[in-house]
Amino acid sequence: MRTRILEILRKKPEGYLSGEEISRQLSVSRTAIWKHMQTLKQAGYEIEAHPRRGYRLKNLPDLLLPDEIRDTLNTKRVGREKIYYFSDIASTNNEAKRQANLGCPEGSIILSEAQNGGRGRLSRNWFSPSGKGIWLSVVLRPPFNPYDAPKCTLLTAVAVTKAIRRVAQVECGIKWPNDILYQGKKMVGILTEMSAEIDAINYVVIGMGINVNIGEQDFPAELKDIATSLSIVVGHDISRLTLLSAVLTELEQAYDSVIQQGFSEMLDEWRELSVTLGQNVNVVGSGREFSGIAVDIDHDGALLVQTEEALERVLAGDVSIRPQR
Amino acid sequence: MRTRILEILRKKPEGYLSGEEISRQLSVSRTAIWKHMQTLKQAGYEIEAHPRRGYRLKNLPDLLLPDEIRDTLNTKRVGREKIYYFSDIASTNNEAKRQANLGCPEGSIILSEAQNGGRGRLSRNWFSPSGKGIWLSVVLRPPFNPYDAPKCTLLTAVAVTKAIRRVAQVECGIKWPNDILYQGKKMVGILTEMSAEIDAINYVVIGMGINVNIGEQDFPAELKDIATSLSIVVGHDISRLTLLSAVLTELEQAYDSVIQQGFSEMLDEWRELSVTLGQNVNVVGSGREFSGIAVDIDHDGALLVQTEEALERVLAGDVSIRPQR
Repeated sequence: MRTRILEILRKKPEGYLSGEEISRQLSVSRTAIWKHMQTLKQAGYEIEAHPRRGYRLKNLPDLLLPDEIRDTLNTKRVGREKIYYFSDIASTNNEAKRQANLGCPEGSIILSEAQNGGRGRLSRNWFSPSGKGIWLSVVLRPPFNPYDAPKCTLLTAVAVTKAIRRVAQVECGIKWPNDILYQGKKMVGILTEMSAEIDAINYVVIGMGINVNIGEQDFPAELKDIATSLSIVVGHDISRLTLLSAVLTELEQAYDSVIQQGFSEMLDEWRELSVTLGQNVNVVGSGREFSGIAVDIDHDGALLVQTEEALERVLAGDVSIRPQR
Repeated sequence: MRTRILEILRKKPEGYLSGEEISRQLSVSRTAIWKHMQTLKQAGYEIEAHPRRGYRLKNLPDLLLPDEIRDTLNTKRVGREKIYYFSDIASTNNEAKRQANLGCPEGSIILSEAQNGGRGRLSRNWFSPSGKGIWLSVVLRPPFNPYDAPKCTLLTAVAVTKAIRRVAQVECGIKWPNDILYQGKKMVGILTEMSAEIDAINYVVIGMGINVNIGEQDFPAELKDIATSLSIVVGHDISRLTLLSAVLTELEQAYDSVIQQGFSEMLDEWRELSVTLGQNVNVVGSGREFSGIAVDIDHDGALLVQTEEALERVLAGDVSIRPQR
């Protein structure tokens, strides 16, 4: 009902609509309409009520409200099922894992305007100010073996890069394994977590932090040199709703394609969008450190690094791209 | 305090101890002693209270009570931290995952007298009648890569087999990957689940169902031919408490040894205790089926099966041992 009221109000962006008119169109009482209006206001919609003229939708809120998302989305599963929406939460990934444990369907998404304990890989912090980014987790239940879970990170990186390029025309690229950079600065981080038996995945939670409208002055000092946002790059704010819708659409397409056609096409797309391949990289992890040229990724999603001595296969660890001289 | 009261009562297995005497030894009021006695009775201890003579511990309960477990255990971590004990629960693994998500320490264990939704691999049922088995989950936080999680199943199989052989002198053996058999019948099932990021384990839950004192007549019809218990094999009941303590001790030793010395020694122990190696096996899974001889397991815990055409590496799937003619 709320969705239908919003639909009617949206069709008349300037003028007023009387409660009588709305109640006639929807065949519900004026008291019911009044109650729904209160709920919509509480949800963040700016609705003006004039004693004689009626109601007017003054401003669509700059919030990622479930009704607005459903309205812009044309996916089949991702975001079509449950949308869990919060104003503030510790971490959307933690909430997603909780919901997944309780049995929420594949394609459920968890969104929050802000995160007060946003996490990146290995429990590192992720700066998630209110209303300035897309702090999103998606629950999938892929028919993969746990060994194949890293593919979820790779296909998400491809999907988000394509969505950003399409919506904002920003030529960002993928840094192996889980970041999206623009001119060396972090714009998106991806955190994939899974719950699995030894030979079957229970669920995968893909968390994304997309820096959309964070101003240069908003970043804490320690991030200023290493992070950026879409609005900084393009010089104006980007609609989070439009970008979110594009991300979910691309994600569903990428996921379906991997399930139906296997992983090799996705790997090709990943290679094209990568900023890591061809670069001198430094690898730290598993008790060792070495440098070499990132030459490719293999079908398991491992990064192949050619050192002076050997071709190293990197499955985990921190990879930094060394500045060219 | 309850532990200390039990200690005092256990030292006098036949006679009575007056409330006055106990309250003097422990320096607490007789009312406090009386309250603790009520709690102990509720927990399942049979305590006789005689108006003049005092208290007497009539019978240790045949329950896996936390106080009793702590009393028999000499591990450092496993079972030393939290013990979550239930009379009945859906699944100890589900509860373990819930507690692990909430941050319970490594070594925490979850025990239930019965499970009403006990699970084996791939959501198969596990028959878990009250008081007749050890239905146990252990929470570990190994410093492994998720790729190494299958090792937890293997090391647990070794630990439980050794504990059973030591406590009950039953020559059971390990069927790859997660069962312990006696003369072809299932005596123990192991279900390892994990929560992980792509390159770090959050936690591993190792679930065990050990058929201890299930009588032949207790098994449902469909299990009679494929399952057995320790009491069926040895002809009398086995103390669950003694066996549990041995299992936790062996598990801690095996886990510590793998972390400190790597996996190769454990693999050797596994090979010795295996009933799969050297057998004709049938492998079903990942959309294919083939037969061959199980020749070894490799350092990742994969089963190596020599078919007429090739050496197949089996990471997942169902392996059945074909009867010898």
